[in-house]
Amino acid sequence: MAARTVKLAVIPGDGIGPEVVAEGLKVLATVAPAHDLALDTTEYELGAKRWHATGETLPDTVAAELREHEAIFLGAVGDPTVPSGVLERGLLLRLRFDFSHYVNLRPVRLYPGVHTPLGDVTPEDIDMLVVREGTEGPYAGMGGVLRKGTPGEIATQDSVNTRFGVERVVRYAFAKAAERPRHRLTLVHKDNVLTFAGELWQRVVREVGAEYPQVAVDYLHVDAATMFFVTQPRRFDVVVTDNLFGDIITDLGAAVAGGIGLAASGNINPERDFPSMFEPVHGSAPDIAGQGKADPTATILSAGLMLDHLGYADAARRIERAVGEDLQARAKDGLVRSTSEIGDDIARRVAEQG
Amino acid sequence: MAARTVKLAVIPGDGIGPEVVAEGLKVLATVAPAHDLALDTTEYELGAKRWHATGETLPDTVAAELREHEAIFLGAVGDPTVPSGVLERGLLLRLRFDFSHYVNLRPVRLYPGVHTPLGDVTPEDIDMLVVREGTEGPYAGMGGVLRKGTPGEIATQDSVNTRFGVERVVRYAFAKAAERPRHRLTLVHKDNVLTFAGELWQRVVREVGAEYPQVAVDYLHVDAATMFFVTQPRRFDVVVTDNLFGDIITDLGAAVAGGIGLAASGNINPERDFPSMFEPVHGSAPDIAGQGKADPTATILSAGLMLDHLGYADAARRIERAVGEDLQARAKDGLVRSTSEIGDDIARRVAEQG
Ligand SMILES: CC(C)[C@H](C(=O)O)[C@@H](O)C(=O)O
Ligand SMILES: CC(C)[C@H](C(=O)O)[C@@H](O)C(=O)O
Repeated sequence: MAARTVKLAVIPGDGIGPEVVAEGLKVLATVAPAHDLALDTTEYELGAKRWHATGETLPDTVAAELREHEAIFLGAVGDPTVPSGVLERGLLLRLRFDFSHYVNLRPVRLYPGVHTPLGDVTPEDIDMLVVREGTEGPYAGMGGVLRKGTPGEIATQDSVNTRFGVERVVRYAFAKAAERPRHRLTLVHKDNVLTFAGELWQRVVREVGAEYPQVAVDYLHVDAATMFFVTQPRRFDVVVTDNLFGDIITDLGAAVAGGIGLAASGNINPERDFPSMFEPVHGSAPDIAGQGKADPTATILSAGLMLDHLGYADAARRIERAVGEDLQARAKDGLVRSTSEIGDDIARRVAEQG
Repeated sequence: MAARTVKLAVIPGDGIGPEVVAEGLKVLATVAPAHDLALDTTEYELGAKRWHATGETLPDTVAAELREHEAIFLGAVGDPTVPSGVLERGLLLRLRFDFSHYVNLRPVRLYPGVHTPLGDVTPEDIDMLVVREGTEGPYAGMGGVLRKGTPGEIATQDSVNTRFGVERVVRYAFAKAAERPRHRLTLVHKDNVLTFAGELWQRVVREVGAEYPQVAVDYLHVDAATMFFVTQPRRFDVVVTDNLFGDIITDLGAAVAGGIGLAASGNINPERDFPSMFEPVHGSAPDIAGQGKADPTATILSAGLMLDHLGYADAARRIERAVGEDLQARAKDGLVRSTSEIGDDIARRVAEQG
């Protein structure tokens, strides 16, 4: 079989981004050939450095080039020398919005051997898939400021929720729940306070749910959900939620599943009208950048999600297995390794499965 | 010294509300006389039953009567037979908003002997005070629905943040941080996405903070904060945050500090222009209502917060101490007691300290 070539845009970004991305690419380079996949990568320098040099976060010409790729592989974005929000909104969120990444897919899974801050849980207790909406809600950026700097100042933030936007992500979540063995879907919202948006989410879940009689549907207020994440994580299988609640509960999910160094994510456009984007949940961690201290595992697992999205499910499973083995080995030997040593070890394990 | 008489409005509410409120009143009745305090209580039947009977959540005449009291003691509000949001918005939030409860005070503290889902923490690690804004943010109820029920439907929720509203709660939080031994204040927000509101909160914290050079100020995005709640709770002393983020992190805080059965709260109008309201953080728990299974501790601790607010700090400390002793005794004997047995035991311990 002739190798298929996938055009992959790589955005290493800021802080530890370049270090962890390098390890992700290392593992991809190991696994791809065995699956007749050739990756044609182009690196884009976007982030703090570019902003300081040119004032640009994402020039239209670059956005147009990115659009010509099948996927985007991103490290991290953000730096203390850039005002909060500039890179997040101008680059990361702009890509999510412009490329219609309405599914922000975030598995929360406790791998055997991994230390969790929770005292009484086992890997069987934590295995969920959070489907976070990625293109609307309070992330729409709507709102404004009136009478700034005066005693009468008002700042508003408007959460935008459309039938179109809610339905498409809810449909995706139900399809995932139907595929998974437990067939459970939990809507997380705050419908007793955010009554307008909450009623829409509830109604859409009810209507789409009617097409999935085999999926058991549950609802939790977001406040209660955070409680159950630490007291009864087992009650969650697929979770569907809005952009902001999803942001919050997936960081919490990462924490209970062993830390942000292991949490992967995909920003997915299921119709493939635009390139999907894969990135670790963690940020740029400027305090440890350049020291080889960052754990590249989250980025490597994100590469796995990318392969799955590109149609290479077997290759994706291989990465997951290799990571699982590496995490168990860590638990036993307790060795502290550098970023690239961890990448080497996972790449070796991937190769050994070949 | 002649006893001072405080007019106290009691709203037992729904579900387990009446059971836990009874125990709170029992403990108050034990402690009050020793501090020359007479409580003149009036009970108000508000909640699901009244709504079913009359369609009313809070008649204006009742609101006017409540206003004539010095404080309100509330159990819980909400019932599955009432549409989500009706009682919450029509009763609970209406009281918080009409009576300008801009400080929603929620201590998060791990008492010795209490089981926490976190594996590696001790009581010294969890001792924070969350100061949640209570009268604006996404709780303002603003927003609406357009083209309901059609494919073009849009639902919005608007978060409203005023200089006036943010400053008064931030001032309160700094004053608390200055009083506490660790002198630390953490602002929790999401200023990289909610840029309009986030910038206002940051600026106000900076400006008010300049008046409190002895207080160390820190900032965390809400997603990162939930992570640190489970991995490094020790980093928090006073936390100040908006209404919605405060709702979320205090449920999480309750979970890590041993559960919602122990989490107390005060809805406070510091200027005393209106009665402040004290209630457990938990809801009405209809599934266990009427069975004597509810833990009244959160309500009893809320009574303690109320005494503190009314100027009876010594009486408040007595309740806290009695609860602390009771929780340690529980840890030792492991006995399962009914709601009223727990109330009896705490009341006895309060009396013994007399
Ligand atoms: C960096 C930030 C804008 C982003 C978000 O809030 O979505 C991050 O927290 C995430 O979860 O990917
Ligand atoms: C019942 C609900 C409206 C309320 C809130 O969201 O504030 C509750 O969760 C709380 O924390 O007191």
